[in-house]
Amino acid sequence: MKVRIDVMLKEGVLDPQGKAIGHALKTLGFDNVEEVRAGKTFFLDVQESDVAKVMEMAEEMAHTILANLVIEDFKVTIL
Amino acid sequence: MKVRIDVMLKEGVLDPQGKAIGHALKTLGFDNVEEVRAGKTFFLDVQESDVAKVMEMAEEMAHTILANLVIEDFKVTIL
Repeated sequence: MKVRIDVMLKEGVLDPQGKAIGHALKTLGFDNVEEVRAGKTFFLDVQESDVAKVMEMAEEMAHTILANLVIEDFKVTIL
Repeated sequence: MKVRIDVMLKEGVLDPQGKAIGHALKTLGFDNVEEVRAGKTFFLDVQESDVAKVMEMAEEMAHTILANLVIEDFKVTIL
């Protein structure tokens, strides 16, 4: 089963990468870009067909190494 | 209007970050993880209400700085 885990900085946490991209886009003439936030996405192929088990495993993986829960949120999507 | 741009390595392009994460997950006991691919996501807030214009702008931004089209694919989603 394929699963997607999106990791994003929490609202209110400063995002220097997003800020830099936003600045670069403005410099390139994309004047109407207001805010940019950058995040990470992980696509995992898991040898398990039970959706509930895959969800649980994905959340555990996010908690363990994929996301830093102090500053990041994550979202699991079964594909 | 909010727009999301997902940038992923093309199929077949070696993904060392994904490989490292897959290895780390196996070491941590997640034995049934088969493949991991890592990608980037950008959320943009654009001051423009015309969907077609925003799509066009997002594709241009992806071509210009967000994605390296030699090794990466991208997908634009209007939120």
